[in-house]
Amino acid sequence: MSRPADLIRTLTERGLTIAVAESLTGGLVVAELVSIPGASAVVRGGIVAYATELKHDLLGVDAALLAAGGPIQAAVAEQMASGVRERLRADIGLATTGAAGPDPQDGHAPGEVWIAVATAAGIRSVRLELGGDRASIRRETVDAAIELASMSLPE
Amino acid sequence: MSRPADLIRTLTERGLTIAVAESLTGGLVVAELVSIPGASAVVRGGIVAYATELKHDLLGVDAALLAAGGPIQAAVAEQMASGVRERLRADIGLATTGAAGPDPQDGHAPGEVWIAVATAAGIRSVRLELGGDRASIRRETVDAAIELASMSLPE
Repeated sequence: MSRPADLIRTLTERGLTIAVAESLTGGLVVAELVSIPGASAVVRGGIVAYATELKHDLLGVDAALLAAGGPIQAAVAEQMASGVRERLRADIGLATTGAAGPDPQDGHAPGEVWIAVATAAGIRSVRLELGGDRASIRRETVDAAIELASMSLPE
Repeated sequence: MSRPADLIRTLTERGLTIAVAESLTGGLVVAELVSIPGASAVVRGGIVAYATELKHDLLGVDAALLAAGGPIQAAVAEQMASGVRERLRADIGLATTGAAGPDPQDGHAPGEVWIAVATAAGIRSVRLELGGDRASIRRETVDAAIELASMSLPE
């Protein structure tokens, strides 16, 4: 069984729901989850906040934090995860932000990515340093985010 | 040049932005647009309102309309397109809603899909009747939505 299918099955068994906030992955994480039959029972939806100010408007990320440090940092990923969890009323909030390339973004090299997960138990973020082109950076971010969610489910 | 790349190029040339509201396609439309280099200048983001009540909460679709007729109807697609255009402050709002299958949904057969586009000039919706499996219905909906947006750009 693929990891996304395994995540959907575990969420279903435990009666948990998930929502996703995405920047560089642009909808790929939620699309991957929705592609699994039965996903509608556990996937609430997602917010793709590609423009930086939408991370504040749609997800409640602190505007001063964005202004001071830009969108690629741990605290932004964490607030995205927490914000989408609250606003979409899900048990699990999952988030991605980073530089997909090909050019550096806000002083960050392509492949510098933060992912985060928020649950009732708290919030975790993980920094990734990925190689490859734009498509491969996004693909590896999707896989890492789904793995992070799978490892972070409350019992 | 692929149709998504062509749409991004045309939006860039005309100084227009786009935002996407998705149900059955679950993020695939916005992911397809974001995959094009240069997309960050014109793609504002998207909202995946997979759970029906989120179409009201996140996009402002009329709750009475959803309660009376369900999520698969022209007026819902139109309000999703209009809602995402307003809330993400984009020139073009694009929306998808429908039954991906494999089971009928709210009395609609798999493959019954509505797509809609909202611009300053107004709102258009189109009904699709698609065959094939869940993946193919979603894929064809993505293509049709991007084609509808391409045909609906203000000069």
